[in-house]
Amino acid sequence: MDIKTYLSAKKFIVDKTLDKLVPCAKMFPASVHEAMRYSLFAGGKRVRPILSIAAAEALGAGTSGLLPLAGSLELIHTYSLIHDDLPAMDDDDFRRGRPTCHKVYGEAIAILAGDGLLNLAFEVLSDPRRTKAVPANRLIAIIKEISAASGVLGMVGGQVVDMESEGKEIDFPTLEYIHTHKTGALIRASVRVGAIYAKASEKRLKALTRYGELAGLAFQIVDDILDITGKREEIGKDVGSDLKKGKRTFPSFYGLEESRLRANEVAEKAVHSLRDFDRKADPLRELAKYIVNRVN
Amino acid sequence: MDIKTYLSAKKFIVDKTLDKLVPCAKMFPASVHEAMRYSLFAGGKRVRPILSIAAAEALGAGTSGLLPLAGSLELIHTYSLIHDDLPAMDDDDFRRGRPTCHKVYGEAIAILAGDGLLNLAFEVLSDPRRTKAVPANRLIAIIKEISAASGVLGMVGGQVVDMESEGKEIDFPTLEYIHTHKTGALIRASVRVGAIYAKASEKRLKALTRYGELAGLAFQIVDDILDITGKREEIGKDVGSDLKKGKRTFPSFYGLEESRLRANEVAEKAVHSLRDFDRKADPLRELAKYIVNRVN
Repeated sequence: MDIKTYLSAKKFIVDKTLDKLVPCAKMFPASVHEAMRYSLFAGGKRVRPILSIAAAEALGAGTSGLLPLAGSLELIHTYSLIHDDLPAMDDDDFRRGRPTCHKVYGEAIAILAGDGLLNLAFEVLSDPRRTKAVPANRLIAIIKEISAASGVLGMVGGQVVDMESEGKEIDFPTLEYIHTHKTGALIRASVRVGAIYAKASEKRLKALTRYGELAGLAFQIVDDILDITGKREEIGKDVGSDLKKGKRTFPSFYGLEESRLRANEVAEKAVHSLRDFDRKADPLRELAKYIVNRVN
Repeated sequence: MDIKTYLSAKKFIVDKTLDKLVPCAKMFPASVHEAMRYSLFAGGKRVRPILSIAAAEALGAGTSGLLPLAGSLELIHTYSLIHDDLPAMDDDDFRRGRPTCHKVYGEAIAILAGDGLLNLAFEVLSDPRRTKAVPANRLIAIIKEISAASGVLGMVGGQVVDMESEGKEIDFPTLEYIHTHKTGALIRASVRVGAIYAKASEKRLKALTRYGELAGLAFQIVDDILDITGKREEIGKDVGSDLKKGKRTFPSFYGLEESRLRANEVAEKAVHSLRDFDRKADPLRELAKYIVNRVN
């Protein structure tokens, strides 16, 4: 299989889904709807929805009913980017090569656009017109999965520790906490949402969960590497921003070369965790490799 | 019945519920958990959870299974207060007589505490340990109700328009939009959550929805009045803050006397909407009167 073709085909479907999930930019009050769409359609790779879809496919499930749930993962991811970029937080001016949400719409609207996207995710997840393909009890399990991953013991907690660590000498376990919570939790949840949707057995859910954890870790190591070695036009933000902010990263502990080795090792482990799956899991396998070889 | 006794009894139960729903303040990362608790236990009246409980009682339902759901309404209400108070938004230094969340914990932690509370609400609503009393399909309906009310076509939208109207000459329909969305939507949803929990018939749900809309409107008119006539030590924030911010309010359109009359009229209508309910709806009836007679 060709992962690039797979990714662009899925991205197309996810983008179409997202367009339907978010109110149109002219809907009153327009500013906040515009801001939500501005950040949501800023060229994201849609890694989380695609992981979710690939996990369901690995179990042989059809995925049309999964699309709104997969879309809600991207809504939550985008909310977290908008809030993380705020002046009071990471204070970033560029994201994916464009001015950040608060740079264009002001801080207040950016905060509210983030809040709006987060709420919208749960509105989508509980909307019978959009989720009729999923039995209510499974839907509840999916909502639990997503809210726990994005909450204070997941992504929010990771961002708290990340921010409180800026300019401080942190130890490696603290960096690991930041990674597993800030990025890892939602990536893990994305894979699990696809698995729960597809009625995974306990054993398969466990294997896919392991895959999700490893994929999330590989993703974050590579993010840290790209912040040093990436090209501005490819990563869409300033190179070296972690360093400038005094943020410790994977390479700052292990060096670039060792970090690259580790990322590859982790991706291989992710592939290995799928050893009991047939060819239908190939997209997940290729995704793990893509995650370490990506340039943005 | 004595509404004061009723309110303090219910507030006690709601507070106990909330204490169980929110991670303890020492849990890592402590700052955000402390901030969440700081704002959540700042002396709120718990109007929304109590309305929800009273609505279920009006239908003759036991309410122990409703408590976590009612609590989630207060989590969402508190998240909205924290974000509304931010410097980029209403820039308020005091709330309920104490410094606002960002004044104590800084802007970044305040934003994240708000995000944490919002996520937590949905985590609670989808947690089988907490919601086992509620069938999954009814739970989904409740999640839909709450997320729609707090989202961009509800509370978030109201805050957007409120902020964008500051210092501008707005017309009365715009003020009505702000009221019905910023405050009204979640109050209406609170009543409906209790009603859905208690398996209200279509007809009763409609009557209770009407009650919720009127109670929300009365609540907001009185809020506007108290911003002019209230005592600082009672309302817990500076008197005249709306005026200072150039915000138009109900009294700025109709004057104080007329606004008082309207608030009473609306509360009477709220009581009237319960005409087909028996004595079990007395708490709701008394709550409508309490809302217009309150001093904070």
